[in-house]
Amino acid sequence: MPPAEAGFADGTAWIDGRIVPVAEATLPLLDWGFLRSDACQETISARAGMLFRLDDHLNRFERSLAKLRMIAPLSRAEIRQAIHRLIAAAGFRDAYVQIIMTRGRPPIGSRDIRLCSNRFQAFCIPYVWIAPPAVQERGLHLHVSRRLRVPPASVDPMVKHYHWLDFEMALMDAHDHGAETAVVSDAEGNITEGPGFNIFVRQGDRLLTPRHGMLDGMTRRSVLELCAELGIAVEETEVTVDALRAADEVFLTSTAGGVMPVTRVDDIAIRNGPGAITARLRQAYWDRRGAGWHGEAVDYSSNPHAQQEQAS
Amino acid sequence: MPPAEAGFADGTAWIDGRIVPVAEATLPLLDWGFLRSDACQETISARAGMLFRLDDHLNRFERSLAKLRMIAPLSRAEIRQAIHRLIAAAGFRDAYVQIIMTRGRPPIGSRDIRLCSNRFQAFCIPYVWIAPPAVQERGLHLHVSRRLRVPPASVDPMVKHYHWLDFEMALMDAHDHGAETAVVSDAEGNITEGPGFNIFVRQGDRLLTPRHGMLDGMTRRSVLELCAELGIAVEETEVTVDALRAADEVFLTSTAGGVMPVTRVDDIAIRNGPGAITARLRQAYWDRRGAGWHGEAVDYSSNPHAQQEQAS
Repeated sequence: MPPAEAGFADGTAWIDGRIVPVAEATLPLLDWGFLRSDACQETISARAGMLFRLDDHLNRFERSLAKLRMIAPLSRAEIRQAIHRLIAAAGFRDAYVQIIMTRGRPPIGSRDIRLCSNRFQAFCIPYVWIAPPAVQERGLHLHVSRRLRVPPASVDPMVKHYHWLDFEMALMDAHDHGAETAVVSDAEGNITEGPGFNIFVRQGDRLLTPRHGMLDGMTRRSVLELCAELGIAVEETEVTVDALRAADEVFLTSTAGGVMPVTRVDDIAIRNGPGAITARLRQAYWDRRGAGWHGEAVDYSSNPHAQQEQAS
Repeated sequence: MPPAEAGFADGTAWIDGRIVPVAEATLPLLDWGFLRSDACQETISARAGMLFRLDDHLNRFERSLAKLRMIAPLSRAEIRQAIHRLIAAAGFRDAYVQIIMTRGRPPIGSRDIRLCSNRFQAFCIPYVWIAPPAVQERGLHLHVSRRLRVPPASVDPMVKHYHWLDFEMALMDAHDHGAETAVVSDAEGNITEGPGFNIFVRQGDRLLTPRHGMLDGMTRRSVLELCAELGIAVEETEVTVDALRAADEVFLTSTAGGVMPVTRVDDIAIRNGPGAITARLRQAYWDRRGAGWHGEAVDYSSNPHAQQEQAS
């Protein structure tokens, strides 16, 4: 693997078609992607130099763009290449990449959304864990927030968007309760998701995960596939807060951490430690990723700095 | 009034304590104000060199900060001065100023919201009209969206936030229906607000405006005060979509346009032109503003360029 380019050790970003150090990455202040949170994104991970489910992420990105009626200024092939180049320039084996489309803005004086030029940007930082490995070993402590997830009737959860104030407030509530993170519910009292993760609950021999009001997460999808392969029965269904609190096992799934056990839900200890099904799925997830499952090798030769070294 | 400083003709922005041309204003791409829409704002207008309800805006800003548990790096007096300086540097008599707090972000690798340093930024552009004066004369065409406003149980509407994807999608629906803008409802079928405005509906001798699920708008507040002064009975109450469609008059209130008549709601013509109560309130609003109501004169001597000219 070639060394990182100078200034890229903390990460890289793709801004206006150029790769810059992540610390210099900016968005125009007046972009409606910020001023109206009119944006969508995909977060893609690489482990040991292998990107995970890249085509699935690009498919979902395109679906989000279509729903938001945005036009990417880069083709799918160019976005794919940008992802490879961002990782290669940073020189990371384990990376967290976010590709982002924003609405842009109309000319000053206009408020016509149809006059916006949509913008593409992306960044790459070292792989992010929702919870550090030590917390994963003992299991996360989860708070059940009384806040409701922004509902599908307001914002389509199939678009990976940035409407996170519900999550942010729930996180602060969680910290007040001595928990690391939080899950939010819908108006019917069913749990949906948390800040950056989906959730699974085992009740006896039933493994359940919400089917409404949450993101169609890639790690969630991967766990559903693993369950099928391993013969673990799993159901996408309504999961009540009561079911969560009475669960035999609970785990979270996220691009930022894979499969992560929960061992406390507010004042209730779920187990003395991570459960057996959780441990099995967690092991399988990382084993498969290590073996290149749904993988695409990062093209480190796309590092222009490295190419220059080879040429000289 | 002193001339604008060079490069400031399109507007100004306050970034990291410096005044820059608005075209150069940026936000760090990784600020959670963008990546999690974890931000709040106030939009303040000046007409003919007079800021409107500045203390009310600053009070509401402080309320938003407290709810989001953010700490402004500037004092109230410093924020007030920044607003004056932004307008003075641009040299605008009629200005649209937005002051913004963002969460900032924790160090790369951390996801702990408590480690974020909150950031202040602001911008000033020429006064913005939600609808151009000609459209206001004939009255706006309004679409009743089937999308629901992000509910208070998810995000507190008393915080002036950027969760606008419901509005953005409703605006696109409105354009599809040949309307200029849209109003969104709550889950009970009551109208709430639209992108950047509150709404009033006259039914016979009753003037109604929603009381739940919408922003406590400054122009809304001003209209309630004007109604009291002018002896116009007005009620904050539930307003159904049916009541809107059967209305005798409809108007919108916004910092970006004041009092603006609506003359069509989807396929229904509300009147042949703006109604009499609307016209009276619109006239009163602008007359009062012209007379300095709730006003504070922009301190154009706070333009450092002008001071330099005087000194030389």
